[in-house]
Amino acid sequence: MNHFNSIDRLSLNQITTEKWSLKEAVDGCLRADVPWMALWRHKISEIGLRESKNIIKGSGIKISSVCRGGMFPATTAKLRQVAIDDNKRAVDEAAELGAEVLVLVCGPSAGKDISEGRKMVEEGIEELVPYAEERGIKLGIEPLHPMYAAERSVIVSLSEAVTLSEKFQAKQVGVVVDVFHVWWDHDLYNQINRAKGRILGFHISDWIVPTPDMLMGRGMMGDGVIELRRIRQAVEKAGYGGPIEVEIFNQKIWDTPGDEVLALMKERYLEHV
Amino acid sequence: MNHFNSIDRLSLNQITTEKWSLKEAVDGCLRADVPWMALWRHKISEIGLRESKNIIKGSGIKISSVCRGGMFPATTAKLRQVAIDDNKRAVDEAAELGAEVLVLVCGPSAGKDISEGRKMVEEGIEELVPYAEERGIKLGIEPLHPMYAAERSVIVSLSEAVTLSEKFQAKQVGVVVDVFHVWWDHDLYNQINRAKGRILGFHISDWIVPTPDMLMGRGMMGDGVIELRRIRQAVEKAGYGGPIEVEIFNQKIWDTPGDEVLALMKERYLEHV
Repeated sequence: MNHFNSIDRLSLNQITTEKWSLKEAVDGCLRADVPWMALWRHKISEIGLRESKNIIKGSGIKISSVCRGGMFPATTAKLRQVAIDDNKRAVDEAAELGAEVLVLVCGPSAGKDISEGRKMVEEGIEELVPYAEERGIKLGIEPLHPMYAAERSVIVSLSEAVTLSEKFQAKQVGVVVDVFHVWWDHDLYNQINRAKGRILGFHISDWIVPTPDMLMGRGMMGDGVIELRRIRQAVEKAGYGGPIEVEIFNQKIWDTPGDEVLALMKERYLEHV
Repeated sequence: MNHFNSIDRLSLNQITTEKWSLKEAVDGCLRADVPWMALWRHKISEIGLRESKNIIKGSGIKISSVCRGGMFPATTAKLRQVAIDDNKRAVDEAAELGAEVLVLVCGPSAGKDISEGRKMVEEGIEELVPYAEERGIKLGIEPLHPMYAAERSVIVSLSEAVTLSEKFQAKQVGVVVDVFHVWWDHDLYNQINRAKGRILGFHISDWIVPTPDMLMGRGMMGDGVIELRRIRQAVEKAGYGGPIEVEIFNQKIWDTPGDEVLALMKERYLEHV
């Protein structure tokens, strides 16, 4: 069968309802029967880790991932260590909250040499892996869209994310496929296939035309040009059957009441994904 | 030697001085001793092909390329033919104006299936090749930045542009390397090397941070993060020694008097390229 008839894999990535606190988002998911959530660290820190854990634990909501670790490149060894320390705290939070995956947004280059930035990312992950392994947390490298190469991540294609992940054990480091970041790639389906056994997450939204903004221009599924179902099926063929996160940066959606966003998200998920 | 000490390969891509007419741009280049220009078709059509030719012919300015052909995908066979006919006119204009290269911006997909769009691009080029060959015009496939995949071009990486060009003879179809579109690619230097013998143009500008706008956010060389000299040297190593076009879409630069833009462009070219 092609389409879903259940939302049992649907996950609300918390950024989609940015105005909700963690508690509000959990309550919203419970009202809407959305079984999964992805948590953002700035939302966790608003109320603290212990309180966050209490809210999650009693709710029955499952945690698909924590966003985000990464941001490895820095100009000095000291600053790179600061980044590693922060990543270790992110691993701790993921473990405490019962997530299996910490999503890595790897960070921009510290200088003009982008290959140097890529080297620092690899070194950062290398340093983080043993710590994450001890705590049962997998690291999911999320390649961002190339338009974020200068400001957010030097890892901007699935190809390089898979190659980078292959330097580590598959049980420890994998990739996160976000349709918004990778849909344009002529080699996408080969690369998804190459990622077999290493896909740790699948994020959905849409690419709307015209694109209103580089950062805040993502759309709700079905409002854009991305072949969501085709990509979802490829990801499944590559062995991923886990939660599917809806992650949308869009001011209009952020300004819409959360319950309405969740209702629309469920409808579009069944129709387009 | 690493840097240039002459501007003998410098070309003004006319879009950089968008407010100038063709005549004004030619006069500006003559005043600034810029030996090359790349012409845009909307500027040619403002005064007509015959008048454009007269202006160019007497000036001594050499023409590095005409921008642009392409935009091949369309929903019906009839509309695809309209696109081919327009491309043939672009070839005619390039031939009349003494350009060797017509730059192809291949166009967005007509429907949601991006691979279908890519097929239409290939078919379009295939149909255009004999016509261009007869008139001595080479076709330069310019991969755009992936952020333009939905609105301007389904060809968004150097890798796929080279692969596409290889379906045709090297003397007839090649690629145009524009640093703004390809700088983020982790495989860039391999792909430039792969393009050996097929590079038909080299465009420069810069990627500024933060990026003010998706379309109008390009910067003057030296104002951003692109490793211009490194890429230029790679392109040369791959056999390209032709004109280097400065192509900048940026409202601030468009609002600056053309003579000032040319002076700055020359200075930055010698310093950063």
